[in-house]
Amino acid sequence: MTKAHMHTQATVVASYVDGDRLWDRLMALARFGALPGGGVNRQALSSEEIAARAEIVRWAEAIGLVPSTDAAANLFLRLPGRDDSLPPVLVGSHIDSQPTGGKFDGAYGFLAGIEVVEAIRSAGIQPRRSIDVVAWMNEEGSRFAPGMMGSAVFSGARQLVDIYPLKDAAGVPVQAALEQVLAAKPSLPLRPFGWKPHAFFEAHIEQGPVLELERKTMGVVSGIQGKRTFRVEVVGEENHAGTSPRGVRRDALVAAVNIVQALQNALWDKDDIVRFTVGMFTVSPNAPSVVAARVTFSIDLRHPDATTLTRLGDRVAPLCQEHRLRCEVNVRELLHDPPLEFPQHIRDKLMRISNALGISNMEIASGAGHDARYLHYICPTAMIFIPCKAGISHNEAESIQKEHATAGARVLAEAVLDLTNAE
Amino acid sequence: MTKAHMHTQATVVASYVDGDRLWDRLMALARFGALPGGGVNRQALSSEEIAARAEIVRWAEAIGLVPSTDAAANLFLRLPGRDDSLPPVLVGSHIDSQPTGGKFDGAYGFLAGIEVVEAIRSAGIQPRRSIDVVAWMNEEGSRFAPGMMGSAVFSGARQLVDIYPLKDAAGVPVQAALEQVLAAKPSLPLRPFGWKPHAFFEAHIEQGPVLELERKTMGVVSGIQGKRTFRVEVVGEENHAGTSPRGVRRDALVAAVNIVQALQNALWDKDDIVRFTVGMFTVSPNAPSVVAARVTFSIDLRHPDATTLTRLGDRVAPLCQEHRLRCEVNVRELLHDPPLEFPQHIRDKLMRISNALGISNMEIASGAGHDARYLHYICPTAMIFIPCKAGISHNEAESIQKEHATAGARVLAEAVLDLTNAE
Repeated sequence: MTKAHMHTQATVVASYVDGDRLWDRLMALARFGALPGGGVNRQALSSEEIAARAEIVRWAEAIGLVPSTDAAANLFLRLPGRDDSLPPVLVGSHIDSQPTGGKFDGAYGFLAGIEVVEAIRSAGIQPRRSIDVVAWMNEEGSRFAPGMMGSAVFSGARQLVDIYPLKDAAGVPVQAALEQVLAAKPSLPLRPFGWKPHAFFEAHIEQGPVLELERKTMGVVSGIQGKRTFRVEVVGEENHAGTSPRGVRRDALVAAVNIVQALQNALWDKDDIVRFTVGMFTVSPNAPSVVAARVTFSIDLRHPDATTLTRLGDRVAPLCQEHRLRCEVNVRELLHDPPLEFPQHIRDKLMRISNALGISNMEIASGAGHDARYLHYICPTAMIFIPCKAGISHNEAESIQKEHATAGARVLAEAVLDLTNAE
Repeated sequence: MTKAHMHTQATVVASYVDGDRLWDRLMALARFGALPGGGVNRQALSSEEIAARAEIVRWAEAIGLVPSTDAAANLFLRLPGRDDSLPPVLVGSHIDSQPTGGKFDGAYGFLAGIEVVEAIRSAGIQPRRSIDVVAWMNEEGSRFAPGMMGSAVFSGARQLVDIYPLKDAAGVPVQAALEQVLAAKPSLPLRPFGWKPHAFFEAHIEQGPVLELERKTMGVVSGIQGKRTFRVEVVGEENHAGTSPRGVRRDALVAAVNIVQALQNALWDKDDIVRFTVGMFTVSPNAPSVVAARVTFSIDLRHPDATTLTRLGDRVAPLCQEHRLRCEVNVRELLHDPPLEFPQHIRDKLMRISNALGISNMEIASGAGHDARYLHYICPTAMIFIPCKAGISHNEAESIQKEHATAGARVLAEAVLDLTNAE
């Protein structure tokens, strides 16, 4: 097969991508867990998500895809290739959402994957390798923390036995929730863990403002920035707001505020590359007339450069100690994920395809974590982003344009077909 | 009756105060709502408090006191005087507690009141005026805010219809909770509002460290410092911690921390007289990977000088606006209680009695608010404090000494009897 021939085949497949069909499926999926504000509450392994899975399996079977799952409730929909013994190409994302999430987030990448196989089928092509459209279990981590749970287990980064005991706020363990999903009818064949895909593609909304600001239809993701997370506990002493002089207080809120400001100042960078967030800050007893005895707060620190991330993250605990005033402080690091860079040759391929299709594009770094992080360690992995309105995400107001969704699926269709036919 | 005769009578009554009996009642009352850490959770109008009320009524009837209540569920136990048509002398405090409160707080002042009438009865004296031992409803304000609710309604500072719709965290309105208490068996005669007591005495634990530091057994309270409370709402925008650059964020937590530090700096005083507390600080959505959209925090500001309190309190809203960064900020003032000074002649009387009994004493200002605040506006009112260990209060570790409790009740017995016999 010549390069010229491949190129012709690719543009043929892209032309079979049907933007209306993709959009209709996005709207249909958004009915599962729909919220009044236009978003969705479809958290991992919830009844809303179970209902969505059943509907998706019906869609898949109607177009000849073969559904299956694994013990982590990752959902696979297979378009069988000519040689089913070869490792398949995976394409997809996730269908779970935040409690007040948008309807596009992971849903777009998953449904773009379905549109890719629809386009390949419509073009009358049976690829050499099979294609599995995949929805990874619990990417968001809102009901069961941490997120990216299904892809972590699939890739071997975590073991099933380690996630089984993790509980949601109601005390339900992951194991029980998984059993409920896996027992849902119709029950699906169970695939083993431990196999390596030929490649993985994930499309996603950007969740940031860059593509919109740069007026580009698509971003080829260079990599995912590194992330370190911490939990800081500040312990003071409960006291009466009216009677205790400042001089005798050990006010946990005063100390925590002092620490947060010190961290902010120390981690400030002129170029605005460092991402430093205190998103959770919980006070006890949290009563207006009681001096706070305890504050627990989160630190989310991200940077695309591994050395800088290590250097800045290593300053967190000492800074907390220096600024604790008269309180005790305990700092625990929960996560240290180094930055990663997707393979250059697939990024180049995505860029070439996008140019050939006349779709404006740019290279873009991912600020958010994605399931692609874990797949990257076991197979060639790539991501594309499409713009989302004003960069708003994890919010019911999340919004994308049909033309961008369509363009992303067209690039994806080309790239997936190309890889399925590769040696 | 000559002055010499009165003095003799008074010291007689003090000798009938039984410290063991008082202590036993403190321990018995502490079983209602008892917590494993030695404190109590006996919040206003709760089932624990209803059970405590029933037990107290049994104690009262056993010693010949006449129980009654009013529509605000203030509880009165009357020792009838020789002339029941005269306005009675009131003595007491409250029996409700914070969620993790100590067992002495208001309970001491109420049970000291019972001990006062026990001593007067034991001495074989029937006073001229009746004495009502009183437990004011909801002093703490932890279940239903604001506190001092019963004394506020009794004194006319608030109307019953204004407190009826106020709800607890479970959505139960004060009205429904009051009905439950008033319907409890045995049902008590209902007294009207609008009458003025002849005088009110309240004993209380200090809730601060001064008496212990000064090694005094009793404090005669000069007055209650003024208090202004505010609720500050900081509104930013929810965003993704990984993707949104600092430059586009409107981070409500960053702004709130900035405001709290600015307030702290601006309200700092060398002499440590200003009481400035941010005890409640609630973040939304309070998720580690989400930039905070909203922070609501409380400000509790107290000062014994009316002019200073006004001046400092008036700076709060402008300071919040100046330091809001890119967020919106709304400041509501919830309360402005000016400082008050109890009448000098009753304070002098308490000091004379204390000296006559050989009880070490000092004048002391109250940092905390008390039901005496509202009674002060309708009748001559006075307070005494006894020491509490290390000034710790609103805490299960709250602790007092039996000798101090006894000494306080002895002074109170003298003062109450003196006033009941006054013209």
